[in-house]
Amino acid sequence: MRVYNFSAGPAMIPLPVLERASAELADWRGSGMSVMEVSHRGKDFVACAAETEAALRLVLGIPDNYKVLFLQGGASGQFDAVPMNLTAPGDQVDFINTGQWSKKAIAAAERQGQVVNVIADEAASNYTTVPPAASLAPTPGAKYLHYTPNETIGGVEFGYVPQSDAPLVADFSSTILTRPIDVSQFGVIYAGTQKNMGPAGMAVVIAREDLTGHARPTTPAIWDWQAMAESDSMLNTPPTFGIYLLGLILDWITQTGGLTAMAERDKAKADALYAAIDSSALYSNPVAKDARSWTNIPFTLADPALDAAFLEGAQEAGLTNLKGHRSVGGMRASVYNAMPMAGVQALIAYMESFEQQH
Amino acid sequence: MRVYNFSAGPAMIPLPVLERASAELADWRGSGMSVMEVSHRGKDFVACAAETEAALRLVLGIPDNYKVLFLQGGASGQFDAVPMNLTAPGDQVDFINTGQWSKKAIAAAERQGQVVNVIADEAASNYTTVPPAASLAPTPGAKYLHYTPNETIGGVEFGYVPQSDAPLVADFSSTILTRPIDVSQFGVIYAGTQKNMGPAGMAVVIAREDLTGHARPTTPAIWDWQAMAESDSMLNTPPTFGIYLLGLILDWITQTGGLTAMAERDKAKADALYAAIDSSALYSNPVAKDARSWTNIPFTLADPALDAAFLEGAQEAGLTNLKGHRSVGGMRASVYNAMPMAGVQALIAYMESFEQQH
Repeated sequence: MRVYNFSAGPAMIPLPVLERASAELADWRGSGMSVMEVSHRGKDFVACAAETEAALRLVLGIPDNYKVLFLQGGASGQFDAVPMNLTAPGDQVDFINTGQWSKKAIAAAERQGQVVNVIADEAASNYTTVPPAASLAPTPGAKYLHYTPNETIGGVEFGYVPQSDAPLVADFSSTILTRPIDVSQFGVIYAGTQKNMGPAGMAVVIAREDLTGHARPTTPAIWDWQAMAESDSMLNTPPTFGIYLLGLILDWITQTGGLTAMAERDKAKADALYAAIDSSALYSNPVAKDARSWTNIPFTLADPALDAAFLEGAQEAGLTNLKGHRSVGGMRASVYNAMPMAGVQALIAYMESFEQQH
Repeated sequence: MRVYNFSAGPAMIPLPVLERASAELADWRGSGMSVMEVSHRGKDFVACAAETEAALRLVLGIPDNYKVLFLQGGASGQFDAVPMNLTAPGDQVDFINTGQWSKKAIAAAERQGQVVNVIADEAASNYTTVPPAASLAPTPGAKYLHYTPNETIGGVEFGYVPQSDAPLVADFSSTILTRPIDVSQFGVIYAGTQKNMGPAGMAVVIAREDLTGHARPTTPAIWDWQAMAESDSMLNTPPTFGIYLLGLILDWITQTGGLTAMAERDKAKADALYAAIDSSALYSNPVAKDARSWTNIPFTLADPALDAAFLEGAQEAGLTNLKGHRSVGGMRASVYNAMPMAGVQALIAYMESFEQQH
């Protein structure tokens, strides 16, 4: 029985994508080989990677003056690669700190020798808010402004795009492909793939081309955006299975109405779950209403002693991976693109039933 | 029809492994999820990763005082990570240069600020030889001696393990798991996975524990061997599908007799192909006989004008990816663990038939 998997990542993959991948795993495109076995420099895979890039460009509306890179090391790798590619040691950079993933990106920038100006820090609310747009005062001369549009652990999401004279750098790991975005507002977008784009092990980087070509001499070749752009992300052997599977997911997005339809479905799922939480006496979500995530919805039970029973019953009902992050406690429902509304409805029904019993 | 795929990497994966992965792709271990969808911090995947590590330790005979890491970025990433973890800028390191992969590792060490002593360079033979063991004179005080046991492009392989007072660091990408090795002779072994260990996108690092814990402060967290060892390679989201598939491959190795049997099969495959080349008037292999690779066997045709016809006929016969590396020309047959003797015999039969016709 297929379950509804609320994992924060790795996370659900659309069943039609899994079924297609399974069917062609030992013989891809009539090649007599698995897509995992073909040479990345052969014409079949070169075409596959080009198709995946073209589909991503089309679905996200990526302008021609942006490079699209498929890199290894996930978003955590890009925490270090961003300062390596955009700064020299000692340069000033701006960060907005909205929680744990912001903090990891800040730590990496400091590790790479940046002078980090945290221009907004939501510590006072225990990271349940985003700063008001008008309150942001970027530092003149900073090389970039980095922010985390969605904090996967805290369940906090920006409802706006911060503005700065410096290029905007955004870790879109949790919400890329959940809705249309205006890529031209960003200098660099990066995202780990294990939430909305397939298996773990890859980062997609979308970089405005004037921001490539400035990597420090010590930058590892496989994270040098310019070198990777010039080699179509194949300076070394790329994560071929991840590129292939992202292509299948983009096909699925296109076939189900593209990002406009995706956004409607994702918003409806989140709205339904927040409404259930807010109308309940047992459950609560700590996040400010204007900062609530579409994709990561933490909630606590009024009596934490009920947590174990809640999780056990959920597991029996085929609702898995609802345990909250160890740093937050309680529950967390991650509802990425591949989670159907039926899964959210099943969760709500279970929550209501559990509340009535306790 | 499944073909015999002689790709240098990504490369053949045993068919029983692909069939098992295909069968359980949408429902792994009865979880109702794909292995690609489960949380890396859930008990099922934590157990899977532990099983893979235990199997690798058993199959390779890895002593307890070595850490086993599953990292992203492939062997190319480790080209930079090795000096980051083992040296400070300005430290001296020794390298043996036997070809293109040695050169890339040297370039990365220089990029990371090392003083590189190339204690042997096989340029005089156009990289068709390995240096005599007795000729090596490691530099007193060098932090490590790095070599490439098998050059995938040149088809050159060491028949011995170099000795140095400094720790030995080896890029085992092409030959790991092809035969038993004495891990205790090495300080660090690293290998990309896309030849004998599964899909592209992962590096396995086997590091003696006294060599961890010395990373430079600027080392990206995901390549800090000590930090990754302490977190069971899960400081960030690991390449879960690759870890899972490596586990399946290790099962297959164990079921087919372990590395002793593997070595017999691999050596027999290589011996048969070299014998066919050496007894032919049309084909030749440029590598010194004491330096011939078991896994990557380049050969040229006496008349390069026949190359296209050779490749076309091979493709029709179900023998794929035989075109040589662009830097070498001619042909290259990579015959990793998953290539059966029947594939090598089919190639030899085709080569003989082609020679008779031309």
